Amino acid sequence: MKRYEVLAQEFSELIRSGALPAGARLPSVRETSRSRRVSPSTVFEAWYLLQARGLVESRPRSGFYVRADPTSAAKPARAVPPPRSRAVAVSDLVFDVLATTRRADLVPLGSAFPSADLFPLAQLARAMARGLRSLPPARIVDDLPPGNERLRRQIALRYARAGVEVDADDILITNGALEALTLSLQVVTRPGDAVVVESPTFYAALQALARSGLRAIELPCHPATGLDLASLSATLRRQRVAACWLMPSFQNPLGSTMPTEHRRELVSLLAAHDVPLIDDDVYAELHHGPHPPVSAKAFDRKGLVLTCGSFSKCLAPGYRVGWVVGGRHAQALERAKIMTTLATAVPSQQALAEYLDHGGYDRHLRSLRRTLGRQCDFASRLATRLFPAGTRLSAPEGGYFLWVEFPTHVDTLQLHAQALEQGISTAPGRMFSAAPHFGHCLRLNFGHPRDPRFEPALRTVADLVAAQRA
Amino acid sequence: MKRYEVLAQEFSELIRSGALPAGARLPSVRETSRSRRVSPSTVFEAWYLLQARGLVESRPRSGFYVRADPTSAAKPARAVPPPRSRAVAVSDLVFDVLATTRRADLVPLGSAFPSADLFPLAQLARAMARGLRSLPPARIVDDLPPGNERLRRQIALRYARAGVEVDADDILITNGALEALTLSLQVVTRPGDAVVVESPTFYAALQALARSGLRAIELPCHPATGLDLASLSATLRRQRVAACWLMPSFQNPLGSTMPTEHRRELVSLLAAHDVPLIDDDVYAELHHGPHPPVSAKAFDRKGLVLTCGSFSKCLAPGYRVGWVVGGRHAQALERAKIMTTLATAVPSQQALAEYLDHGGYDRHLRSLRRTLGRQCDFASRLATRLFPAGTRLSAPEGGYFLWVEFPTHVDTLQLHAQALEQGISTAPGRMFSAAPHFGHCLRLNFGHPRDPRFEPALRTVADLVAAQRA
Repeated sequence: MKRYEVLAQEFSELIRSGALPAGARLPSVRETSRSRRVSPSTVFEAWYLLQARGLVESRPRSGFYVRADPTSAAKPARAVPPPRSRAVAVSDLVFDVLATTRRADLVPLGSAFPSADLFPLAQLARAMARGLRSLPPARIVDDLPPGNERLRRQIALRYARAGVEVDADDILITNGALEALTLSLQVVTRPGDAVVVESPTFYAALQALARSGLRAIELPCHPATGLDLASLSATLRRQRVAACWLMPSFQNPLGSTMPTEHRRELVSLLAAHDVPLIDDDVYAELHHGPHPPVSAKAFDRKGLVLTCGSFSKCLAPGYRVGWVVGGRHAQALERAKIMTTLATAVPSQQALAEYLDHGGYDRHLRSLRRTLGRQCDFASRLATRLFPAGTRLSAPEGGYFLWVEFPTHVDTLQLHAQALEQGISTAPGRMFSAAPHFGHCLRLNFGHPRDPRFEPALRTVADLVAAQRA
Repeated sequence: MKRYEVLAQEFSELIRSGALPAGARLPSVRETSRSRRVSPSTVFEAWYLLQARGLVESRPRSGFYVRADPTSAAKPARAVPPPRSRAVAVSDLVFDVLATTRRADLVPLGSAFPSADLFPLAQLARAMARGLRSLPPARIVDDLPPGNERLRRQIALRYARAGVEVDADDILITNGALEALTLSLQVVTRPGDAVVVESPTFYAALQALARSGLRAIELPCHPATGLDLASLSATLRRQRVAACWLMPSFQNPLGSTMPTEHRRELVSLLAAHDVPLIDDDVYAELHHGPHPPVSAKAFDRKGLVLTCGSFSKCLAPGYRVGWVVGGRHAQALERAKIMTTLATAVPSQQALAEYLDHGGYDRHLRSLRRTLGRQCDFASRLATRLFPAGTRLSAPEGGYFLWVEFPTHVDTLQLHAQALEQGISTAPGRMFSAAPHFGHCLRLNFGHPRDPRFEPALRTVADLVAAQRA
């Protein structure tokens, strides 16, 4: 156990025993650092760990406070959306924001991608050269769906190491995770069906629903523990649900992570109603701590969990290689893929198969996780310091997004326009719901640790937010 | 003018003047070769050219005969499908046949792909290495839709050289042509709409219609000149048509090529009814003769022609790089792409941009066209010699498919099963219609010129066909 973990353990016992009651302020970082003879950053790590566990919350410019009700206090500040299904319209806002993320002149606080300089692009290029050199022309058809066999075996192997039994023949290689997700949605739904998503949710899920003429049921999501299972259970009892599209690990945009027990309960609940789970698991490898979350697929006995993964966020941005573990829908998925995009780029598949076969991936991942974890702390501290009192921050245990809930008078759509003028892209909360929710929220990308513009940009955003108060 | 062209010219004048009346047999190859002091292959070339022009037809084991009515005699032997729309079901047959095309142990007569050894894979791999070496990480987002700018400029340049004005900004790079086609279909139709396709047509068009809940109107197609415009005109007057999905050049499976005047008429007819044309132009570069067909896009004044192209069939199989020139639908296409597969593989785009920038493409294409043209002649002669009397062959001027119409008692589904047992894949005619048509027809892939198994396999197929007669 590391020093900060020991310290966090000690304080969590103080909280649980009532010695530190609800509303009590934790001692300051400086004070604790002196009295415990540990560095200030160790204290910070400990307090953030307590925050991630839902025991304390940070109040900007004030400090850390014990939560009134650790299991419910972290829910979004404003009313959760009612669990009724609604038709979804594809909003121009999302496309406008996406368009800003490709402008190199903008500071990418609103970007959906981590910085490409975090990835072993040179090693991948060498793996590509080897992969193409050793490729006999006749083998090109071998990478047709379900895809490169060596690559599928490597993916199955990684699941096996994580304790999930997956047959390489059940894996379909796709053009990134987004294709895996949209194909999954297509094979398990028909126009008019209702699909459960988290609220807030990844905007691409809303777009995919809109395109397929589906209705969204947005269910509340706890910033620490993810989807509210009681709401899901009530919804399943009340109406027919064609599928759930969820992100149990490091949810985009909240950063929430479902505890293992919740995942087990989720899968068993869905199995009881025979509802497929489209399991968006693209951030699975980006856990900041030493252990990955347990995949929902681990609890799947009925082949109802369609786990979608990708190398785009953890290894090879732009290569467009993702996959879906298809369960009972594996054949339908393969056919849907053949009918829409036929195959996934052979060079990309070859390069990744070659890279994974020759090692180095785990070393890269360890370094990437450390970098993102450190940057998460840095960004959280900075945001805590800069943003106005009343602001709430998520405490993600993985990924590269912070979810910021400003005081409710703050308008992040207005902020988006103002920040753009200052050369900064942002992702306003409105992108993440089909309903007009989250208008005071912001998703903050901290995945560009080497970009010196990050800190000044955050200051600018904080100033713009403060000006809205005036 | 080459020798065979001079000879063909001379005989076409004899036919047009009536000196060689309908039903007359052309002099034999041997005879003509001796009397004209040209090689037998020159005579063959001349007769095939006459056939391609619709003036004569080959009767297997007999010779070439002047057609009764050069403009109509070449229509499919059996009744054309009535121009009523019908719902489309995705047939297992197509998937079963596709599954056989990846089996290296089978002779690929049924394959949809040309042999990968016809392509400059080593040069592409070198271009890939250069492209990835010179790629700064921050540039990876540059290849997001609409796609790599250098590549789009190169594609626009090729259109310009062919006399078609296309703005690079109107080009969307896709995951192969199939994605370009399916996205196009999505943006111009709604479920329940009717879409005109050729009969026979590319099975993927039927599958795409089925997936989107669209109805197919299969219109007759002349084996030499493509879609019957009178039928199209009558259909457009009678009912609402949401789009046409056509392949004016080297149609798959017929091999037909619309004459320039027909294209002009087609585009103007559709413009009058404001109907978009999904222009499947993937074989455009594979003309056997010196000149490419004029693209339908050249006549587009209203932005209604969505021309879809690809490098998969002419340069880089497996790289999955295609495109669509979107016309008035360019923005909708870009958004649809972002919502389904997000982006096209960056390495593939980089490699092609680099390859096209450094020359060699035209040299490769010239050699590829020569090879396919020669192989077309070889396959046509062989088929003419081997297949039973009453068989009719298409005379494609490009691509790598022959369309074979056996006598109507022949059952090519049965043939498919029998050929598979002999280690040969075939593409039975039934794949190419939603109606139970073309049961006696076969699409024959001649795009594997270096495969020594081709000739013996064709003999086996001929024997199996002959046995069905018994």
